[in-house]
Amino acid sequence: MDHSDLPPLGFDPHQRFADDLPATGALQPGDPVGQRRFVTVTDGRPFALEGGGRIDEVVLAYESWGSLNAGASNAVLVCHALTGDSHAHGAIGPGHPEDGWWNDLIGPGKALDTDRWFVVCANVLGGCQGSTGPSSVVPGTDRRYGADFPQVTIRDLVRSQRRLADRLGIGRWLAVVGGSMGGMQVLEWGAMFPDRVDTLLPIATTAAASAQQISWSAVQRVAIVNDPQWAGGDYYDAPPGKGPWAGLALAREISQITYRTTEVFDERFGRHHTNQREEFSQWGRYDVESYLDHHGQKLVRRFDANTFLVLSKAMDLHDIGRGRGGVAAALARLQMPVLTASITSDVLYPAYQQAEIHAGVEAAGGTCEYHVIDSPQGHDGFLLESAYLGPLIARTVATAEEKR
Amino acid sequence: MDHSDLPPLGFDPHQRFADDLPATGALQPGDPVGQRRFVTVTDGRPFALEGGGRIDEVVLAYESWGSLNAGASNAVLVCHALTGDSHAHGAIGPGHPEDGWWNDLIGPGKALDTDRWFVVCANVLGGCQGSTGPSSVVPGTDRRYGADFPQVTIRDLVRSQRRLADRLGIGRWLAVVGGSMGGMQVLEWGAMFPDRVDTLLPIATTAAASAQQISWSAVQRVAIVNDPQWAGGDYYDAPPGKGPWAGLALAREISQITYRTTEVFDERFGRHHTNQREEFSQWGRYDVESYLDHHGQKLVRRFDANTFLVLSKAMDLHDIGRGRGGVAAALARLQMPVLTASITSDVLYPAYQQAEIHAGVEAAGGTCEYHVIDSPQGHDGFLLESAYLGPLIARTVATAEEKR
Repeated sequence: MDHSDLPPLGFDPHQRFADDLPATGALQPGDPVGQRRFVTVTDGRPFALEGGGRIDEVVLAYESWGSLNAGASNAVLVCHALTGDSHAHGAIGPGHPEDGWWNDLIGPGKALDTDRWFVVCANVLGGCQGSTGPSSVVPGTDRRYGADFPQVTIRDLVRSQRRLADRLGIGRWLAVVGGSMGGMQVLEWGAMFPDRVDTLLPIATTAAASAQQISWSAVQRVAIVNDPQWAGGDYYDAPPGKGPWAGLALAREISQITYRTTEVFDERFGRHHTNQREEFSQWGRYDVESYLDHHGQKLVRRFDANTFLVLSKAMDLHDIGRGRGGVAAALARLQMPVLTASITSDVLYPAYQQAEIHAGVEAAGGTCEYHVIDSPQGHDGFLLESAYLGPLIARTVATAEEKR
Repeated sequence: MDHSDLPPLGFDPHQRFADDLPATGALQPGDPVGQRRFVTVTDGRPFALEGGGRIDEVVLAYESWGSLNAGASNAVLVCHALTGDSHAHGAIGPGHPEDGWWNDLIGPGKALDTDRWFVVCANVLGGCQGSTGPSSVVPGTDRRYGADFPQVTIRDLVRSQRRLADRLGIGRWLAVVGGSMGGMQVLEWGAMFPDRVDTLLPIATTAAASAQQISWSAVQRVAIVNDPQWAGGDYYDAPPGKGPWAGLALAREISQITYRTTEVFDERFGRHHTNQREEFSQWGRYDVESYLDHHGQKLVRRFDANTFLVLSKAMDLHDIGRGRGGVAAALARLQMPVLTASITSDVLYPAYQQAEIHAGVEAAGGTCEYHVIDSPQGHDGFLLESAYLGPLIARTVATAEEKR
């Protein structure tokens, strides 16, 4: 595979300082929307991590759509998944190699109606799309963190987001919404900061990563560290075309299978061969192999291998019961309205995990709506089934607003 | 990972010529049973392959248990899966790093009762446990095939087994039995040589590899060829400790997840951490990660990476409909009794695939028993659910014998 066109990173983290958030904090009337902004949430004090480490300076990159009203009472936080970023809505453009990952759900007149609500999405701590992560330059030095970046947890991600809310002047979100790793953050928002959120929408996610989920993460990490060009995480100064791209692409190919289903693959690809004349060659490829390769190559052009390692591990560490007396006790903290949803064909975050969230909240006297989306799309259903998810999300946020 | 104890191969293919089959062919009365024997099935004529290549000399390693009766009418052929070999029954011993993979089903008084039937299992063409494969020395040279070994198909495997049957003097098997890749061979026996087999037992298998199954095979192959020590397949003369072990181990780790289920992993491992003090370390490991690593390391001590590539591709190429007017037309050829079985929790060979075999045979006027084994074991259920499979297999073979 030719990677000679590739810089070590698809995104240059230095770029982020170009349009930092004004010191005053929140967006001002007339500020452009849909533009990535950057805010330093550490204010000169180190950010202490759940696992015991610390990060001296944490910058979060975020985007927002719509206008924050005078009472700051119309804000919704969207949390992204493993390889997502702040670009939940919007077009391809500079720094945005892909369309907004939830374009179908966010925008004027959409479920998360930006004519009505102020929608925020931040790249997570540990990310590689503008927020402080392994590819960031260590302040006061000219080197990047690389493998020295401390292991963060979902709780660390959420605590940094709470600081962002403080800086934006948002005391309380109408809703925190997200699927997959985004849903993990949603649950931690409810458990850590119940006074800062009206309603939770954790979609296609889990209260604690299962052994099987850990397994999938683990083999993807092995794919990366097996790549000699990963070089112990110290590949940022490698010459153009050199980097752990083969390993990261393989990690993505593995995950891509777990995101979809045999039904979708049968329908889209079947046994069609890319070049029938090479059918009996060891190296001939079926269409589905080209599809996986395409997804792998697309990711290495926009994502950082060390961020993949750190966030994948953060997902494995996700257990809302840790230090809280177990999952049941943690779910009992969720006394705000909760809505969760499963996708029937999701093999990566199977329906039993969302049913557990539902049962746990209700068992503790809370309120949890539970929806089962009958869809062949697999885990990616949380990105694709907007016709089903949209009305649920719109109604839930509207109800929260009415109760204000 | 330290591989300094590893020879390039767990098994020395040269060893196989020590106890070749006598020129007379079949086992003789008094011959030891359960001992690996070797037979050259090419008899001086090249073996032509479905894909167009040829192999000048094909040796098959096989084992047998029980005694072939005077009429050679009590023989059962067992076909092994991807990383299996001829050691379907028996103990650990020289050349046999593991117990027989179907010990629970084969033996005196077992379902495949070796007091009554003559049970044969051969390492497949392309294998690495004694049969001709990529690790074999090219006859008349001192080099091994490596990546020059031609791509074989399931049909090639079965044609070589038919030659073995000829050499053993077995005109017609009472039954051909196997799961997974073994089941692919069972189906091809029925489609290619209907006069040579009384009944077919294809378990947890498919009429044609699906796009998802091809995907899993593909990422495992990428894991191997990404390993620089795979060296284009030319690693047999590498110094001790050098070889594509990291890549092959990763391939195994990936497949191991697909062989099991979230239920089994939850019950066996849950979120237990191998060393709780390292919980928040990027490199700390949950028990399930150690389990996967164990399976990966175990495989590299007994298996050849090039064989993995060749057989994995042979499975992708499996389509009983190829050149026969499609799967339905091919299943219509199976006019002998067929018994197939699904494992409810099998995500790699999902139940719809065995249901398709059942429906296709019956639609063409054939006879196919179909059993659904309610088990949490996943694809490995075909190895583990002997309490369920045993009586089915015993009854089917006994019925075939009664009809003789």
